[in-house]
Amino acid sequence: MITFLSDYGLADGFAGVCHGVIATICPRARVIDITHGVPRHDIRAGALILRTALPYAPVGVHLAVVDPDVGAERRAVALRLTDERLLVGPDNGLLWLAAQDGGGVSEAVEVGSSPWRLEPVSATFHGRDIFAPVAARLAAGEELADAGPPYDAAGLARLDLPTSRLEDGVLVAHAVYVDRFGNIQLDATHDDLYNAGLRLGHGVLVGAHAARYLRTFADARAGELLVYEDSSQMLAVAISQGNAAERLGVVAGDEVWIRAQR
Amino acid sequence: MITFLSDYGLADGFAGVCHGVIATICPRARVIDITHGVPRHDIRAGALILRTALPYAPVGVHLAVVDPDVGAERRAVALRLTDERLLVGPDNGLLWLAAQDGGGVSEAVEVGSSPWRLEPVSATFHGRDIFAPVAARLAAGEELADAGPPYDAAGLARLDLPTSRLEDGVLVAHAVYVDRFGNIQLDATHDDLYNAGLRLGHGVLVGAHAARYLRTFADARAGELLVYEDSSQMLAVAISQGNAAERLGVVAGDEVWIRAQR
Amino acid sequence: MITFLSDYGLADGFAGVCHGVIATICPRARVIDITHGVPRHDIRAGALILRTALPYAPVGVHLAVVDPDVGAERRAVALRLTDERLLVGPDNGLLWLAAQDGGGVSEAVEVGSSPWRLEPVSATFHGRDIFAPVAARLAAGEELADAGPPYDAAGLARLDLPTSRLEDGVLVAHAVYVDRFGNIQLDATHDDLYNAGLRLGHGVLVGAHAARYLRTFADARAGELLVYEDSSQMLAVAISQGNAAERLGVVAGDEVWIRAQR
Repeated sequence: MITFLSDYGLADGFAGVCHGVIATICPRARVIDITHGVPRHDIRAGALILRTALPYAPVGVHLAVVDPDVGAERRAVALRLTDERLLVGPDNGLLWLAAQDGGGVSEAVEVGSSPWRLEPVSATFHGRDIFAPVAARLAAGEELADAGPPYDAAGLARLDLPTSRLEDGVLVAHAVYVDRFGNIQLDATHDDLYNAGLRLGHGVLVGAHAARYLRTFADARAGELLVYEDSSQMLAVAISQGNAAERLGVVAGDEVWIRAQR
Repeated sequence: MITFLSDYGLADGFAGVCHGVIATICPRARVIDITHGVPRHDIRAGALILRTALPYAPVGVHLAVVDPDVGAERRAVALRLTDERLLVGPDNGLLWLAAQDGGGVSEAVEVGSSPWRLEPVSATFHGRDIFAPVAARLAAGEELADAGPPYDAAGLARLDLPTSRLEDGVLVAHAVYVDRFGNIQLDATHDDLYNAGLRLGHGVLVGAHAARYLRTFADARAGELLVYEDSSQMLAVAISQGNAAERLGVVAGDEVWIRAQR
Repeated sequence: MITFLSDYGLADGFAGVCHGVIATICPRARVIDITHGVPRHDIRAGALILRTALPYAPVGVHLAVVDPDVGAERRAVALRLTDERLLVGPDNGLLWLAAQDGGGVSEAVEVGSSPWRLEPVSATFHGRDIFAPVAARLAAGEELADAGPPYDAAGLARLDLPTSRLEDGVLVAHAVYVDRFGNIQLDATHDDLYNAGLRLGHGVLVGAHAARYLRTFADARAGELLVYEDSSQMLAVAISQGNAAERLGVVAGDEVWIRAQR
């Protein structure tokens, strides 16, 4: 079982070619596409989607490629996590959040010069030439230690996200991820709102916009702004039947202030 | 065998997460994605695509999620049809057309509190927490009756479409579905045009626009408007190498008048 | 093993329906989607993606449908290549480049009236009614000769691409393919630039635009125009973290002039 996430899109055949490489090396491997729609070069978005998806996928090989520095100095790695998942991808932070959630890295190898890579290795398509072959061999049961030389996990690229804080009764959170519906996931939880004195059903201000803290979209009127706990148990901001990110002008990374309506 | 249709899109990993859930519960299940590109919350478009696709899919479990009222009062259901297909999804009309075409519902259960659901059930992602697990268990051969309490099929949400009519020699039809090429499927057939006195090759008026009734695109000139029988044996309006819906300003649900040119 | 490429997109269920047809006929066939995002009716783009992808896919059945003249006179064919790959699709040039790369055609049959087609055959959806069933039967191990009457491979539709040339020290190439990132693949190689007197690291002019000949994106500054050897060992023009096709106003088929900066 392999899961596969990338920013290749589905228009050009890049993801399809990687599927072909995997099927050639390990015909019985089943591949689940998490998404290939990560915004181009957006390591952070890729890392967040990967972290969200992995708990719902069978333990296996998890291939992830968002790789703005392909061909440059960044390392290519394969990692075994404490929970036995194997991650394969560039060492640029993309794998960081998933690795933490999987209990940390118990074994790491550098695969940039893996004996399993396809020759000639292109300078621009390591998904095809390095990462997919390594993932396929691991799915076929070959040993991680044979994929390349050991790598010091302490040197792995980190992805540090800001953290929310409570400041004078205002919850200062950040837009972590904006989905295609314009729903804004925050780095804050129900407990954070509770500590800010807010309860389900209360009126809140999101920046200067009036909203309500509700259980789900369906409790809001069409067009109403709501704060709710999303399917990852994180707070999110949405507009029922609308696009909150557009309305509020919020993009991933922005600060989002939430406080009680007075 | 599971087919899967939704309005999740492919950008965010929602569909991929559901694939992960299915593979975790029933690793040998094969999943065919019908589409995840149903316009957001468009129950009617989802129902139409599902109805069109099912006759070409093996009898199995058919998972469909277009669910604007997730978290509210709508029921979540699993249905056995007379033709032995199993449908899983929200009871909001999405499954109605496919159920009718499958000979009607022979057994129905309510799965909102299914023992098979993933806990905690989120308020917003029942595809992951309820529908995918139920579909996977059914694909694994578990009994429909074990998915939840019986549900009265007579209470299922219906999806009633308008019907075309012949009025003073004018065929008053409706745009049922507009595909990404701008081709407009109508709720009328070759026989309806025949009864309006039209024959293949004749000139027709679609609203105020001159067109011809032809067998296929390839019989039209580039840019020419044509009426033809589409691959579902329904009449459709298209522009050869163009976008008819844009040119005519037609969206799904609109009336479309067709009559002979005089 | 079947690979599948089309211009059906993923919004409407056309590709999903073909998957259903294949699974009905040959439940054990594994299908790899190369892409369904070929621009509508763009035979040339489809042919180029197919040619690029096939060397990385297992030898099997390769289904390709970009079919602007569906329902008209163009033939529907299934081909065995010298390298044992089986190609199935319309005979409109779409299969030409892949067939050449596979060593040419060793056996061809016409499948428009194949005994394997689904009845009634629609005038507009031969992917579902002809090509998918033929591909599925071949994947199931049935004989190519049983798919339809023999067809003279000498009569197959060709796809002739322009070729680059060196003219007064200027490399006159053509934009062969533009990917979704705006990277422009040319019909020229490293050797052609070498013969034009250019070396890695040199400044070049692409039309009137200053650029550098580099190994990969990562060697360029953000926003810098570069010429490089892409993952198909062809020259390409790109902008690091930008869209070269938009900046240069280049579309597939255009001439692109490259020469040394003086």
